[in-house]
Amino acid sequence: MNKKDIFHFDYLLLKSGKKLENIDIAYETYGQLNADKSNAILLEHAFSGNAHASKLNENDEPGWWDNMIGENKAFDTNKYFIICSNILGGCGGSTGPASINPKTGKEYALAFPVITVEDIVAAQKKLIDFLGISKLLSVVGGSMGGMQVLQWMISYPDSILSAVPISTAMKHSPQQIAFNEVGRQAIMSDSDWNNGNYYQKNEPKTGLALARMIGHITYMSDKSMEAKFSRKLKDKEYAFNVGTNPEFEVEGYLRYKGSSFVKRFDANSYLYITKAMDYFDVSGKNFTIKSKNKNLKSLVIAFKSDWLYPPYQTENIARHLKLQGYDATYCEIKSSYGHDSFLLETEDETKLIKGFLKSVEKGALK
Amino acid sequence: MNKKDIFHFDYLLLKSGKKLENIDIAYETYGQLNADKSNAILLEHAFSGNAHASKLNENDEPGWWDNMIGENKAFDTNKYFIICSNILGGCGGSTGPASINPKTGKEYALAFPVITVEDIVAAQKKLIDFLGISKLLSVVGGSMGGMQVLQWMISYPDSILSAVPISTAMKHSPQQIAFNEVGRQAIMSDSDWNNGNYYQKNEPKTGLALARMIGHITYMSDKSMEAKFSRKLKDKEYAFNVGTNPEFEVEGYLRYKGSSFVKRFDANSYLYITKAMDYFDVSGKNFTIKSKNKNLKSLVIAFKSDWLYPPYQTENIARHLKLQGYDATYCEIKSSYGHDSFLLETEDETKLIKGFLKSVEKGALK
Repeated sequence: MNKKDIFHFDYLLLKSGKKLENIDIAYETYGQLNADKSNAILLEHAFSGNAHASKLNENDEPGWWDNMIGENKAFDTNKYFIICSNILGGCGGSTGPASINPKTGKEYALAFPVITVEDIVAAQKKLIDFLGISKLLSVVGGSMGGMQVLQWMISYPDSILSAVPISTAMKHSPQQIAFNEVGRQAIMSDSDWNNGNYYQKNEPKTGLALARMIGHITYMSDKSMEAKFSRKLKDKEYAFNVGTNPEFEVEGYLRYKGSSFVKRFDANSYLYITKAMDYFDVSGKNFTIKSKNKNLKSLVIAFKSDWLYPPYQTENIARHLKLQGYDATYCEIKSSYGHDSFLLETEDETKLIKGFLKSVEKGALK
Repeated sequence: MNKKDIFHFDYLLLKSGKKLENIDIAYETYGQLNADKSNAILLEHAFSGNAHASKLNENDEPGWWDNMIGENKAFDTNKYFIICSNILGGCGGSTGPASINPKTGKEYALAFPVITVEDIVAAQKKLIDFLGISKLLSVVGGSMGGMQVLQWMISYPDSILSAVPISTAMKHSPQQIAFNEVGRQAIMSDSDWNNGNYYQKNEPKTGLALARMIGHITYMSDKSMEAKFSRKLKDKEYAFNVGTNPEFEVEGYLRYKGSSFVKRFDANSYLYITKAMDYFDVSGKNFTIKSKNKNLKSLVIAFKSDWLYPPYQTENIARHLKLQGYDATYCEIKSSYGHDSFLLETEDETKLIKGFLKSVEKGALK
């Protein structure tokens, strides 16, 4: 039932005008596709996520949305067929800068073409076509996953029955671009980055770890950091060193998060994916859903303490949908976890999404 | 009248237990000290500031608070004698890690002892004593300058008539520590940093510039960045490069700010000063003003859009002062400039501070 697989296709014409050939998309599925293929839900992972949204069995690694996927959970595997694929440009099994360039026999590195959220979703559409699904019951995702949800609404509105964009924005603001930029600079400043050519050499671990440390601060909130760390020290007293060793627990935590991230993530993918986010802009006229079917329903979710993707950005999505005559519900969940809330505050999310999917599946599920 | 000078003293016993010898404190003064030395106001600079708060004459470089200092301004040089000194550990003329260690004849580098805000203020007290001032009319400063103001209230409450802490906190929160930590990591990750020994070699320019870029994001606000940059591109269209060249104006701005900062700031001072901020904690019992004179008045100012030093932190100062029976007024100014507001929103600040100083000087100024 549950499956991990790789879907292969020949090429994709990219938004940049370039052609990417020989593409793999790694994906996982949970639950069973029904006879008329009407119970499929596509989950979109966030920036540093991957296709592994849920652990398939007890010995599997934790997935990024375990609390949401499974029997009787929000994405109930008794009813739905859940699909999650690693994004194009990523490093979780799909083709990205660390993949072998068929033209050279070596890793692409910076020869990998710049990709956009539109390209990422176009590759997903090929996967969905391959699975024989003509209409997804829903597309759901938070953060960069939410951008993909919006892109589905714009690129393939007639291929989805509903959409759940969470903690996301129609366009990256200059502050969001700026945080990505310092992450990229951290990587590119590491001499081991070597203009992207590090695959057979030392990886730019220090730079990538630093990028992740910066990111982590933005995923939490002032309040959640206070609750988790306060001013707790690793030792009893100030060491009066100038920062070579972590003294405060928050410093140790960030360093740990940075150093564990480099074990599972490719630095060049960091550059490509953050760039795709920064390029993303479906605001204004770009957010026009070209479908005659006005039944496309949306549930738009934001979290109060999220300052990286502030609720006003997410709320704006619901407003634009309503202005175009679509049924959109906006919910702002109280939470202190900051941007990470969409991964952590699963209890309220479950209630909202369960109810929403129930209303969507009426008449659609047989 | 206006003066730039260096005050020298022999040694200071530091909070860490170490003894720092042969100390210079660079300072500037504006206006004229009156006969009974009752019109002196000490201005405390923020993290990356220095003693140059105001330009003395038309050919001078801009100061960091030019709009606030001068004839008929908030700090009216017709009435007051304004003092601003570079902090201990800094790189604006006062003794810091780039200074020559008298014991070795070479720059201190990491042999410089870790200093605290308490040490910084203790050095200032020696300067004020040297100037023959027994009671300052006021001590005023924003951000790390505000921490020094709080430290004056605690260390030398009988040497000040009033205090104006702005956009500051009684203790650094884990989020504030975290942002300092990634800045320090950026510097220490630069191989040119060389464990602090770079003075006769290449300076860690890349790391220091990156630290400043990160800092700059935190000094602005989502709103002010949107107003200043929006999603404006340097060229007309997306370049589809992966971040090697700045594409968005905000990226170019941050890189410019980073590269210009390294020309005027010492990387080791960055480490020492951020550490002093992180160690700062006058919360709870530490914020006890040991004076029988309850006339010490305070004006506590915060700015609504400041998310690096959120207003709740600054407001907390006023509450603690009132709980101890002191006259404290808290004002929250509407502004969209984020933490930078205290340097930029000088019109409202001027009104508040002018009125406050007028009430303080009654009976004090002759």
